[in-house]
Amino acid sequence: MTQTKIAIIGAGGLTGKELTSLLAHHPHFQLVHITSNQVDGKHIREVFPDISHLPNLVFQKHDAPIPKDAHIVLATPNEVSLEKAPEYLSEGRKVIDLSGTFRLHDQTKFETAYKFKHTKFEWMDKVVFGLPELFREKIKNANFVSNPGCYATSAILPIAILGNLRNDIEGAVIVDAKSGVSGAGGRTEEIKFAYTHVYENFRAYKILSHQHEPEMEEYAFVGSKPKEIHFTPHLLPVYRGILATIYIRFAKPVDPKLVEEKLQSATKNEPLIRLYNTPEEIEIKKVQNTNYLDIGFTTKGNTLVLVSALDNLRKGAAGQALQNLNLMFGYPETLGLVSL
Amino acid sequence: MTQTKIAIIGAGGLTGKELTSLLAHHPHFQLVHITSNQVDGKHIREVFPDISHLPNLVFQKHDAPIPKDAHIVLATPNEVSLEKAPEYLSEGRKVIDLSGTFRLHDQTKFETAYKFKHTKFEWMDKVVFGLPELFREKIKNANFVSNPGCYATSAILPIAILGNLRNDIEGAVIVDAKSGVSGAGGRTEEIKFAYTHVYENFRAYKILSHQHEPEMEEYAFVGSKPKEIHFTPHLLPVYRGILATIYIRFAKPVDPKLVEEKLQSATKNEPLIRLYNTPEEIEIKKVQNTNYLDIGFTTKGNTLVLVSALDNLRKGAAGQALQNLNLMFGYPETLGLVSL
Amino acid sequence: MTQTKIAIIGAGGLTGKELTSLLAHHPHFQLVHITSNQVDGKHIREVFPDISHLPNLVFQKHDAPIPKDAHIVLATPNEVSLEKAPEYLSEGRKVIDLSGTFRLHDQTKFETAYKFKHTKFEWMDKVVFGLPELFREKIKNANFVSNPGCYATSAILPIAILGNLRNDIEGAVIVDAKSGVSGAGGRTEEIKFAYTHVYENFRAYKILSHQHEPEMEEYAFVGSKPKEIHFTPHLLPVYRGILATIYIRFAKPVDPKLVEEKLQSATKNEPLIRLYNTPEEIEIKKVQNTNYLDIGFTTKGNTLVLVSALDNLRKGAAGQALQNLNLMFGYPETLGLVSL
Amino acid sequence: MTQTKIAIIGAGGLTGKELTSLLAHHPHFQLVHITSNQVDGKHIREVFPDISHLPNLVFQKHDAPIPKDAHIVLATPNEVSLEKAPEYLSEGRKVIDLSGTFRLHDQTKFETAYKFKHTKFEWMDKVVFGLPELFREKIKNANFVSNPGCYATSAILPIAILGNLRNDIEGAVIVDAKSGVSGAGGRTEEIKFAYTHVYENFRAYKILSHQHEPEMEEYAFVGSKPKEIHFTPHLLPVYRGILATIYIRFAKPVDPKLVEEKLQSATKNEPLIRLYNTPEEIEIKKVQNTNYLDIGFTTKGNTLVLVSALDNLRKGAAGQALQNLNLMFGYPETLGLVSL
Repeated sequence: MTQTKIAIIGAGGLTGKELTSLLAHHPHFQLVHITSNQVDGKHIREVFPDISHLPNLVFQKHDAPIPKDAHIVLATPNEVSLEKAPEYLSEGRKVIDLSGTFRLHDQTKFETAYKFKHTKFEWMDKVVFGLPELFREKIKNANFVSNPGCYATSAILPIAILGNLRNDIEGAVIVDAKSGVSGAGGRTEEIKFAYTHVYENFRAYKILSHQHEPEMEEYAFVGSKPKEIHFTPHLLPVYRGILATIYIRFAKPVDPKLVEEKLQSATKNEPLIRLYNTPEEIEIKKVQNTNYLDIGFTTKGNTLVLVSALDNLRKGAAGQALQNLNLMFGYPETLGLVSL
Repeated sequence: MTQTKIAIIGAGGLTGKELTSLLAHHPHFQLVHITSNQVDGKHIREVFPDISHLPNLVFQKHDAPIPKDAHIVLATPNEVSLEKAPEYLSEGRKVIDLSGTFRLHDQTKFETAYKFKHTKFEWMDKVVFGLPELFREKIKNANFVSNPGCYATSAILPIAILGNLRNDIEGAVIVDAKSGVSGAGGRTEEIKFAYTHVYENFRAYKILSHQHEPEMEEYAFVGSKPKEIHFTPHLLPVYRGILATIYIRFAKPVDPKLVEEKLQSATKNEPLIRLYNTPEEIEIKKVQNTNYLDIGFTTKGNTLVLVSALDNLRKGAAGQALQNLNLMFGYPETLGLVSL
Repeated sequence: MTQTKIAIIGAGGLTGKELTSLLAHHPHFQLVHITSNQVDGKHIREVFPDISHLPNLVFQKHDAPIPKDAHIVLATPNEVSLEKAPEYLSEGRKVIDLSGTFRLHDQTKFETAYKFKHTKFEWMDKVVFGLPELFREKIKNANFVSNPGCYATSAILPIAILGNLRNDIEGAVIVDAKSGVSGAGGRTEEIKFAYTHVYENFRAYKILSHQHEPEMEEYAFVGSKPKEIHFTPHLLPVYRGILATIYIRFAKPVDPKLVEEKLQSATKNEPLIRLYNTPEEIEIKKVQNTNYLDIGFTTKGNTLVLVSALDNLRKGAAGQALQNLNLMFGYPETLGLVSL
Repeated sequence: MTQTKIAIIGAGGLTGKELTSLLAHHPHFQLVHITSNQVDGKHIREVFPDISHLPNLVFQKHDAPIPKDAHIVLATPNEVSLEKAPEYLSEGRKVIDLSGTFRLHDQTKFETAYKFKHTKFEWMDKVVFGLPELFREKIKNANFVSNPGCYATSAILPIAILGNLRNDIEGAVIVDAKSGVSGAGGRTEEIKFAYTHVYENFRAYKILSHQHEPEMEEYAFVGSKPKEIHFTPHLLPVYRGILATIYIRFAKPVDPKLVEEKLQSATKNEPLIRLYNTPEEIEIKKVQNTNYLDIGFTTKGNTLVLVSALDNLRKGAAGQALQNLNLMFGYPETLGLVSL
């Protein structure tokens, strides 16, 4: 069996951990190198005692030498990805970056959203946005893929698959999304993620000012007239999973049959999107620890309500990264993600 | 000290329990009679072992004789309130009904929302909607008050206090609300409220079809042009509390200063509404077990986002009922609800 | 109505907050002064937005002047109580200390358990241990009361009320207790109390080495032969409440009737202890936010199993402090704690 | 690759679901038949939408014809296993039964614990208790294996591996175990498992009377003097995982070094047992979704405290069943359970 060697830079975080676990079940990818500047020197089993299937590896420092023939997954902070991605690319390695650094093609919007200067913007011509349902063919031929944000994925896909219906949208699209702590930075030691502040609680944050809002605006309307998106994230007393309730207003009454057809035809060959007859069937539990994006909808007058759900660490991050890796290296797209 | 005698019909449920506990701390109300057809014959301490302050009462059957001079709180199912409220009123008792039976003045909308025939609709001319911030004076003189729904309260007040700004609203107002299980019927034995289905989970239900939607539409626009409201409730893995995220679109850009002024002037004398500088400060924990409605807002272009939170069993039900009782019987409005 | 003035030193913590809320409902105690070196200068309503009934006070620094005629509750760290308690006592104020500083009469055991030198040990002759069920008369006449630990209370009382049965105990008594985060220091910012480490988790800590173990050993056997206690605390994914499962082995088979009699006679006049027919009826939910200690038992051969539950912030801390305050100042023992 | 065909009778429950998911990753077992009298006729993907890797199967009725060459896993209620196990065995199939029906060799104890008459007791001579760490060789040659209970596994192994130290145990061994709802029957629709009764709650149940107590007594002392075990299960507000705190009293002071040696030598070749230096390191999170049993200990005087943790659906049920299947069919013992 052909083997493709993978190195994960920043494997100590939640996404790195998730991807490590996924790769351990994959027949063709071999994880050969993992780094973390927090737990370097420790064996992976010490750091992830809660995972049964793990390669036999020890964490290295970020700057430790990487096996020549290994390709790269960056699960690092934005500033680190900004430096490292170009470096590895120029060594001839393929790179997937899970940070937000290479997602936005408007430098001003990037620097407003991420609050630091983008000094490698020339790479934005070379990177491919890693949303297979929209850019499958480009990803197959890409050396450099930027993996989408978790919230962004939950909103871009349900809107994008509406196809030409998007041209009749009136006003701003409302994305009201709710995430578990692992999607909202919950691993951090900040007091706001203390048990006493999260359990039995619920709140909105970064209302209309989250960095995934411009990402949604850039990709949800590919192939149609651009529209404004108003995005509000909320913190759930849940560990993993995102549910997004999306409100779209049209110039005229919405025909549910037409929406149904659009969604059906756009997704009938999509292995990781599941459509439901009623949006009330969609729940976080159905997607936790899976790689699916679940979608349902209902309509009333001129309004269309879409509900979507995904696991922020799977289809929202590591699962999507593996889906992209499969495409980049010519393996079946969902190998290691769902039964074939 | 003057004493007003109160009987709670259907005191065995969550709202009845909450009101029982509140009345036990009130200097002027004396709870003299409680009924329940599930636990009749049991002493209140057996049924509510988790409450320290309780009157010395035994549960009676619904049809047990009620002390002549007692006034009535109905915490009963809609069908029961429909029969009982008129009966008690004709006996010369004052009545507050916590069910949805006497809230809507459009019989068709009522019967569509509640799915049963309203055979006492003549009483809709006599009932007062128990939202003190909107109908304080009427409530003071009322013999018959219909207590608002929990979701409805969380949406009606933030919208209503916008005053004449409501006339410039364009399209439907979006109310995306999230409630703990006690606000979503969570005491029921239904399997959908089993721990395994609620914990680590989140879902929408009754999207654009919840019975509180017409209630919001009737009262949120009192004194302004009527608008459409699109309401989606969601079930949180939380016991008590509701947070509502409300999206309002205007014909022209919103001036935050103008909104600020409106909210300030409308609430500066309201003892149970708290305004926050940023909507991100609002969270369910701050209102749990209190009688406050917390409100904050932000704007972007033509869009205004309001965030509100309340405790569904307090300001959303029993607390508001006590606020109404205080008004109906001439006691300080917040006596027993907040420090004076 | 007579009024007794109270100052709480260290009112910004969980216990101070709980006591502040309890005193607000008490007819005879008037909270006149609250201190915190973290939030001094802030109004109490800003710091505790989730409490409806609060006095109109602003937090002072610990060393701000205290009204002459105010008595003191210390809700401070051990080292602070060590310095402050004697100081306030010599000013002629009555003092209740909620820290562990003045609970153990064996200096070596104290310094082993608390890991610092006790420089005011002479005060151990003057302090009364604030467990009303054991030391009611002494507390009535005390100027200086040391409030028991939460775990300690849950174990001492069920064992102590066994009376002379304690003389037949063989070997060490096993106390296996489980607490919510507020009883295990959960307000602290430590990473071990992050949501991701507490939710869906459970673990033991300080096995046979918790500072409440010597406290249990000193007071559980007052009036009988001293015995050894082996205490293991565990951390529950719960906010408040402690349940203790206590295993006692006797030299000969236990007669359940005899145990029943002992518990009945020892508690029939105790307003805050509730006995249950079966220990399976006892649960944390029944005591949360109440001031009760619930007790039940079962036997098998030579073994007696006692199950007890309390709210660590009420009967385990602030509630017990108020019970002691009532006794010290001649008010009805449970005034403000349960219905009279 | 050799393929062994497996049929799961009663695959619609939590254990059946877990085993179905494990087998989907196993290279040598092929799940060919699943039954459920609740969801028969439904495709497995409809019933388990939250599992990514599933075979392409439809649920059959229990009595539907089973492929001739398929071996059997019974995940059925006790009464069903009692009838079905002998039936399948006489057809020449190998059988693993996950119910408690064939675990106890004392018929009186069985009928007391399980409250029904055992009419097939002759099979108790042929069945092997499926605890590989104790009966590995017998399991390899067995046609009929009875899979241990989840609580039982968490207590039997830590005690059994003490070897001859068990002979010096004095009095009854105390097993204080805490389980998530999935280990305590939490999938049932009973009201006691409603979210409102489980969240923020904790209680003991079946104190000294749980059916796993005689199972612990029969197997924990294999090869040593039999001792009494006192077992108390508790219900955690957690979904999966069991932590057991075990108190053992010896005739003389315990030598921690000696215990350390015993545990080390007994487990150094055990792939699914992990020893920890301090019992405080052991937590439910570390074993959730894994097949490990974690063990740690501490001592004080004559007392030894063992702490163990496992996932009740893995090492406590389905994971252990797969471990047994691997042994019965000559595959590597941990294939599909941990990395080799």
